[in-house]
Amino acid sequence: MNIFLDAMGGDHAPFEIVKGAIDAVNEYGVALTLVGREEAIKAELSKYTYPEDKITILHAETVISSGEEPAMAIRRKTDSSLVVALEAMKTLENPVLISAGSTGALLAGGLLKLGRIKGIKRPALAATLPKSDGVFLLIDTGANTDCKPEYLVQFAQLGKIYSENVLGKMNPSIGLINIGVEAKKGNSLVKAAYELLEAGDFNFSGNVEARDIPETEADILVCDGFTGNIVLKLTEGVAAYLLKGIKTSITSNTKGKIGGLLIKKNLKEFKKKFDYAEYGGAPFLGVKGGIIKAHGSSDAFAIKNAVRQSIKFIENDVLQKITENAKKMEV
Amino acid sequence: MNIFLDAMGGDHAPFEIVKGAIDAVNEYGVALTLVGREEAIKAELSKYTYPEDKITILHAETVISSGEEPAMAIRRKTDSSLVVALEAMKTLENPVLISAGSTGALLAGGLLKLGRIKGIKRPALAATLPKSDGVFLLIDTGANTDCKPEYLVQFAQLGKIYSENVLGKMNPSIGLINIGVEAKKGNSLVKAAYELLEAGDFNFSGNVEARDIPETEADILVCDGFTGNIVLKLTEGVAAYLLKGIKTSITSNTKGKIGGLLIKKNLKEFKKKFDYAEYGGAPFLGVKGGIIKAHGSSDAFAIKNAVRQSIKFIENDVLQKITENAKKMEV
Repeated sequence: MNIFLDAMGGDHAPFEIVKGAIDAVNEYGVALTLVGREEAIKAELSKYTYPEDKITILHAETVISSGEEPAMAIRRKTDSSLVVALEAMKTLENPVLISAGSTGALLAGGLLKLGRIKGIKRPALAATLPKSDGVFLLIDTGANTDCKPEYLVQFAQLGKIYSENVLGKMNPSIGLINIGVEAKKGNSLVKAAYELLEAGDFNFSGNVEARDIPETEADILVCDGFTGNIVLKLTEGVAAYLLKGIKTSITSNTKGKIGGLLIKKNLKEFKKKFDYAEYGGAPFLGVKGGIIKAHGSSDAFAIKNAVRQSIKFIENDVLQKITENAKKMEV
Repeated sequence: MNIFLDAMGGDHAPFEIVKGAIDAVNEYGVALTLVGREEAIKAELSKYTYPEDKITILHAETVISSGEEPAMAIRRKTDSSLVVALEAMKTLENPVLISAGSTGALLAGGLLKLGRIKGIKRPALAATLPKSDGVFLLIDTGANTDCKPEYLVQFAQLGKIYSENVLGKMNPSIGLINIGVEAKKGNSLVKAAYELLEAGDFNFSGNVEARDIPETEADILVCDGFTGNIVLKLTEGVAAYLLKGIKTSITSNTKGKIGGLLIKKNLKEFKKKFDYAEYGGAPFLGVKGGIIKAHGSSDAFAIKNAVRQSIKFIENDVLQKITENAKKMEV
């Protein structure tokens, strides 16, 4: 398998990235390529015991930081871990790159260096979110801020292939994020997308109101990238705000503090559900290669899970399936 | 003062509406008009002691339900509590109507029966939401699903007048909901709105990412109605989901149950912050009359607070200020 890890991207690189790679190699027996400053990677690798033939280092002198203008950085920083990895992927079968670095640069790099799969109008970034009875896939979460109705139909198609092949959810039900459940609700984009989704070859379950997102019965929620980014980040923001507020309120007096100690374990278990690290990274779907965006604050556990996700992506031929379906997708 | 209450709108009408009216009359000494079926209102009123000259009944035979197509219902149901109230308002100075009934019908009614204030392109529905250090105003929350950049500037103007005169926040800071903090982020709508807001006569504090909404430093957050509705309802949805999940997790074992009892009072205090009833209703700004949309599940306490909000709206001449500013608002 051709799995690349951007060893220099993310808040805890290279330490946690390398540790995650080691854990993945030891647990899954997979071979990985770490991309970044050889010296720094070697220093990290020397801390661990692992089958040495399973890890290759691909040297890259620099790294693209989150502050840089994505497209320009991709064009100019040809010696960055991201560009070196993408260049290496171009000639390989079924390559996957995991990066916890700049999202913008990763998407721009995927588009500029790998290119769109023929027939795909707009590649989309998906995310796996928790809900009452498992997870759902949200697509697009920010790659496309201005969308046409037909893009949303392609997002549904891309999400379906990913859900079936990586999340193991066959014939997933697809919901459209909207401001009401009735068919005629919403802005002009979602009204038109509703009609296309209903007419399409989907298990389309209709509109989903934002209030119902955390308990949605749908397996995939489709929206434009502006809305998806709002949904993703507001969910994180409200959860963080509430959990902090609850903690402060509990610990404001002695009685509460004692109660807090008694419920600590239960709460910890519950909070685990919201740990992005459990679900791997966010796949960027529709380009000629696998791209997994890991959370910027990814630890080794998150990276290891992103490798597991990449293995499924490769084993179940997600790229080929997207390519084969791309012609059907043309709406 | 000319304050009307739709006695028949909402999940707990007329019981809680009439009780809220009685409480407001007794607490604020204000005079109110209850609109709806005279018999039903009289039966409720007979349960209470109150200064009888302070409450007038305006009879209306029917009610518009949430399932009805708003504009059509407003045109046809001329004997509904909503239409009867709006017709009565037309000839009065500074009238305000509070309704916990159908949001769509209330907005359509405001537009069709009262009409837009001259110079206002699109009246907008605002909502008061809790944040770490108080509240912020979110505008628009659903009246305008497809927006042009100049509408968002007017939303900021409307929000500013409301904040200064009803929420008591002078020279409020205004944030633009976006998917990044940088000026060039977002879809074409917010990119253009950013430039207009920055050039305008505002205390503009720039873009606000969805993750930061619950702890925003801005006093007003501006967005199109589709986005605002998603923000409003997702906040409610995630909060409800989390609080339910935490409760379930706490009570899943004996130790947790005991802990739960000890923190119960603190949690209740904290949850109060998220009680919509504390903040009155959502004002629909830009039409020729005060329109306050109370939550569908409003109880007497929420209605009483909406009356207090209406008193401020009238005493501080919000309608006149919007009208005077409407010419300046033309961008």
